[in-house]
Amino acid sequence: MIHEVAELTVTPQDMRAFEQAVKEAAPHFQAADGCHGMRLEKVIEQPGQYRLIVAWDSVEAHMMTFRESAGFEAWRSLAGPFFAAPPKVYHLALAVAGF
Amino acid sequence: MIHEVAELTVTPQDMRAFEQAVKEAAPHFQAADGCHGMRLEKVIEQPGQYRLIVAWDSVEAHMMTFRESAGFEAWRSLAGPFFAAPPKVYHLALAVAGF
Repeated sequence: MIHEVAELTVTPQDMRAFEQAVKEAAPHFQAADGCHGMRLEKVIEQPGQYRLIVAWDSVEAHMMTFRESAGFEAWRSLAGPFFAAPPKVYHLALAVAGF
Repeated sequence: MIHEVAELTVTPQDMRAFEQAVKEAAPHFQAADGCHGMRLEKVIEQPGQYRLIVAWDSVEAHMMTFRESAGFEAWRSLAGPFFAAPPKVYHLALAVAGF
């Protein structure tokens, strides 16, 4: 399993509406093939900066299967209008489990 | 609870030794007041780019209590020699739990 991280920027006055849109989009991730969880975190030091964190079976499950699905279109319809900058997306693989 | 994210950069040939150093440093986080977990993730798209993710009671537990402790000195002694760029640190608070 890997994690998608999407760095998302919204204008600070849109934060409440954006968070509501992400809440409404959650079922589209939950229904996606190979998706194991999602959450939205906000950057404490920078209002309007967020990290969407989504657990996927693989990079392909996100970048190919999901990106070509109706779920992705639904996500973008809900959240996309709030993006004040292009999302920056990368993927994380566990290196050290720590504790 | 909040999460510290430290964006860490090492030269690709140091990746294995760096991961070993982080493994050795884990007990210093585990022993820290207000620390609830840590893990190291690597950025799949960029070899040598890592995210250290640490769960803390609060930003203060990280930035004040831990940063002034012997545990922080131990962490930096182990991992610091591998840093190829200054770490970039920020903190995340949950905005939408998702699923």
